[in-house]
Amino acid sequence: MSNPPSNARDALGERAAAYFRGLQDRIVAGLERLDGGKFQRDQWDRPGGGGGRSCVLADGHLFEKAGVNFSDVAGTFNPDLAKTLPGDGAAFRASGVSLVLHPRNPHVPTVHANVRFIQRGAGAWFGGGTDLTPYYVVPADAVAFHRGLRAICERHDPALFPRFKAWCDRYFYLPHRKEPRGVGGIFFDYLGAGAEKSAGEPSVASATDLELDPERVFAFVRDLGDGMLDTYHEIAVRRRDQAWDEGQRDWQLLRRGRYVEFNLIFDRGTIFGLRTDGRTESILMSLPPEVRWRYAAAPAPGTPEAESLAQICAQRDWADLGE
Amino acid sequence: MSNPPSNARDALGERAAAYFRGLQDRIVAGLERLDGGKFQRDQWDRPGGGGGRSCVLADGHLFEKAGVNFSDVAGTFNPDLAKTLPGDGAAFRASGVSLVLHPRNPHVPTVHANVRFIQRGAGAWFGGGTDLTPYYVVPADAVAFHRGLRAICERHDPALFPRFKAWCDRYFYLPHRKEPRGVGGIFFDYLGAGAEKSAGEPSVASATDLELDPERVFAFVRDLGDGMLDTYHEIAVRRRDQAWDEGQRDWQLLRRGRYVEFNLIFDRGTIFGLRTDGRTESILMSLPPEVRWRYAAAPAPGTPEAESLAQICAQRDWADLGE
Repeated sequence: MSNPPSNARDALGERAAAYFRGLQDRIVAGLERLDGGKFQRDQWDRPGGGGGRSCVLADGHLFEKAGVNFSDVAGTFNPDLAKTLPGDGAAFRASGVSLVLHPRNPHVPTVHANVRFIQRGAGAWFGGGTDLTPYYVVPADAVAFHRGLRAICERHDPALFPRFKAWCDRYFYLPHRKEPRGVGGIFFDYLGAGAEKSAGEPSVASATDLELDPERVFAFVRDLGDGMLDTYHEIAVRRRDQAWDEGQRDWQLLRRGRYVEFNLIFDRGTIFGLRTDGRTESILMSLPPEVRWRYAAAPAPGTPEAESLAQICAQRDWADLGE
Repeated sequence: MSNPPSNARDALGERAAAYFRGLQDRIVAGLERLDGGKFQRDQWDRPGGGGGRSCVLADGHLFEKAGVNFSDVAGTFNPDLAKTLPGDGAAFRASGVSLVLHPRNPHVPTVHANVRFIQRGAGAWFGGGTDLTPYYVVPADAVAFHRGLRAICERHDPALFPRFKAWCDRYFYLPHRKEPRGVGGIFFDYLGAGAEKSAGEPSVASATDLELDPERVFAFVRDLGDGMLDTYHEIAVRRRDQAWDEGQRDWQLLRRGRYVEFNLIFDRGTIFGLRTDGRTESILMSLPPEVRWRYAAAPAPGTPEAESLAQICAQRDWADLGE
């Protein structure tokens, strides 16, 4: 199943794009209910082929900036990028939904989620994941977030969650800061492409049967897409009315600097988008609305900020805590 | 002269590092007189070899954040980085001064300047430059900045300024925004290394005699280091007391977002530093203290903001204007 014939791949590409298109609508509707504000919806065409729709909510009640992007684009890879990806040839099609939610209240975490499907010659693979970036770590929230993802994974294959959780910990990591981005979640890439096209991803060599079967992967990706924000909604409702002060806001803005550093230096989706002449405003929609950098800023020992950073750096197995 | 014997290269490395060390002191002293505030001075050692001194002024009278960094580090390149650089072997020594000044008043431009010397096996080269990033372009200021640099270049070789001006226009450019970073200045790299080690830099193939002679390059770099902030001081004094409002501040913070995008995605010094396990706080000292990103933000036609952006995008030959 790892190399389905071309017409089967194309058909899967159509079905994936149709699913992602509907998923964006449902996510945006859910976030409008949660926030009470309205998303701006921008339909756009990509000069090189395809297009998408960017939905942005700025200065909402809960969200200072929320971006939910759908795209279904086609084009050709430049040779440098092509070398790093499975499949063959320069022509590609890529569709997916990607979102980043930046709440105003520092007690509400930032969340990122993405599901995508990429076709390139004989290669076709799903990727995605979701990770939580709290400014103030509430262990019960991190546990709930991870358990929600574990439950989705386990409906498909009990081996998935520990693999994708570890992949997330490796991926959402800032080596120059020696810090993870947040409390993690799950991350995966190249699923369905076959291990031999994994372009050096360490964990694909031991891929499970599901990971090599595009139809089973697609079923998992749909289940993830449908459920990936459920726990986040609950966390946001629990934390949104908690009072905050300027010191907490400052910490949030400094930590958002780390988010920018990750997205501009390491994020695969950002790099993919910028290198394939994507729509810049849609790609960089993920950047926080307001950010600070201060030289050698570090929380004083014993403060809630230092404690949160220690919790983040510990990369705990949150789903197992307290079991 | 392009491949001096090893002891001559090492001696030049010592002299360059000594010059850069003194240059930082003089620049910091000059900026303290200009601002009225005091720099924090942090001496640091690099675990892999060498060290440096980071000088930062935060919340000054003129500067919201000013960073002037000296470093003189030694170590080994990782293979990916080594492939992109002249010379041979993994061992390197790099010394230099790098600065970015972020004034609070949106009428005062941000400026970057850097001079550096890198040795790697049989390769040894100078690089550097300085460029001006106004939020509101005042043509007379851009002209003065470029003429100041042209005068320094012409004392050494009349061919340098047009080459380095064009190099700057190419280098400080954000392809994903289709925007230059600012009104430019000069940029150069691999000088003294010999054209055959230029690793694909387009303009080195036609290098001048000076550019192939390390001693003449060093004389030019010293002259540049000593004079590169002179015009900026004058501009800052002219603009520092000009009134500004929240709308102008907003424009400044949005444009600072472009500065962050350039530094994290494209800046050679930042990438070099992060890939050679440099001191992160010193490398990212260049990032602005406060930044905004807003989806699809664009100035309304006919506004001073739109006019400034048009001036920037025109990449004019500022030094020749009005002559």
